[in-house]
Amino acid sequence: MIAGRVVGTITATAKHPVLVSHKLLMVRPLNAAGQAEGKSTVALDMVQAGVGDTVLLLDEGNSARTILNDGQAPVRAVIVGIVDTIDRA
Amino acid sequence: MIAGRVVGTITATAKHPVLVSHKLLMVRPLNAAGQAEGKSTVALDMVQAGVGDTVLLLDEGNSARTILNDGQAPVRAVIVGIVDTIDRA
Amino acid sequence: MIAGRVVGTITATAKHPVLVSHKLLMVRPLNAAGQAEGKSTVALDMVQAGVGDTVLLLDEGNSARTILNDGQAPVRAVIVGIVDTIDRA
Amino acid sequence: MIAGRVVGTITATAKHPVLVSHKLLMVRPLNAAGQAEGKSTVALDMVQAGVGDTVLLLDEGNSARTILNDGQAPVRAVIVGIVDTIDRA
Amino acid sequence: MIAGRVVGTITATAKHPVLVSHKLLMVRPLNAAGQAEGKSTVALDMVQAGVGDTVLLLDEGNSARTILNDGQAPVRAVIVGIVDTIDRA
Repeated sequence: MIAGRVVGTITATAKHPVLVSHKLLMVRPLNAAGQAEGKSTVALDMVQAGVGDTVLLLDEGNSARTILNDGQAPVRAVIVGIVDTIDRA
Repeated sequence: MIAGRVVGTITATAKHPVLVSHKLLMVRPLNAAGQAEGKSTVALDMVQAGVGDTVLLLDEGNSARTILNDGQAPVRAVIVGIVDTIDRA
Repeated sequence: MIAGRVVGTITATAKHPVLVSHKLLMVRPLNAAGQAEGKSTVALDMVQAGVGDTVLLLDEGNSARTILNDGQAPVRAVIVGIVDTIDRA
Repeated sequence: MIAGRVVGTITATAKHPVLVSHKLLMVRPLNAAGQAEGKSTVALDMVQAGVGDTVLLLDEGNSARTILNDGQAPVRAVIVGIVDTIDRA
Repeated sequence: MIAGRVVGTITATAKHPVLVSHKLLMVRPLNAAGQAEGKSTVALDMVQAGVGDTVLLLDEGNSARTILNDGQAPVRAVIVGIVDTIDRA
């Protein structure tokens, strides 16, 4: 997983219903200073996240299918958690 | 998935028929400013996209095989959606 | 696998119990000089590691599920070792 | 897949016969200007490609095993096409 | 696969016996000039390689399990060959 920040919401016309069964959010990784940096991933939101939230992004097909409880879902990236604290001490 | 822009069309002589069963498009990721940047992926087009379109690219073998409805297809990257809006508010 | 340094601890509210069944740690890769550099991964700690430790990070779903002894766990990254020595001679 | 240029030929002493059952070629990705740039991948050549050719590289284990018609082959990257044209219009 | 140079040896205390069943080596990719550059991977050595050797690194779980002849091994990266020559002509 990575810790990332939600930086946008996407609406799309998709080939498969599962791809639009949940909100599609853009998640950008956090750098060592806790700021969003680098390439964004588009993920299905499983935790009611919104823009600005710090989230856990899980990017593996089989894991995504387990989280969706759909062994055939064509999905790879899902938002699976809201980060409460990051302690870099 | 990622959100990307279609930046080219490819014709190829391929080893397996499924690789040329759909249009082959080059998709380049969008950066935080919404511009195409970085490394392109070559993907099978499932949504009648064209150069300049903003699309959803799904890059996982099992997902691609589900989208193609062919559990044996040697394919990893497919274009599965047309992005209508990205709201970075 | 990669060799990385534990740079932080995360607490999160997660979608699936396995994601919080172990401590969640941020691991940053070591560069050629042995310093943490680049993008961090969030991984489940299987070896009682702490911030500052040099660890082995295994980042593959099926391997993570084997380590967790749970074939259905939606997990990809696990910390599977404590690095004792790196000999670059 | 990616579009890449063949930049070298490798000979190796390998652990498994399938790894040397086809020519091993180094493939470097094409950037937006159509030039080879960035990290090379070593792939099994399935299309009689040679140095200087522009090819399609498929980098997924299950796809590679299908292309090789060997469900147990320890292979991930295969060259599966010769690129005839890239139209960036 | 990639072609890389062995740049170090690792000793570790690991969670699973297979992870220490073979020597653990750090492998750094070769750039276009044939020099080690970029991020290292920690891999199980299957070919009696040593620091300074140029090797083939295979980084896929199912392939690694085949090479190890252990379908349940929690392993992703293995060194599967010694590179004899790279011809960039």
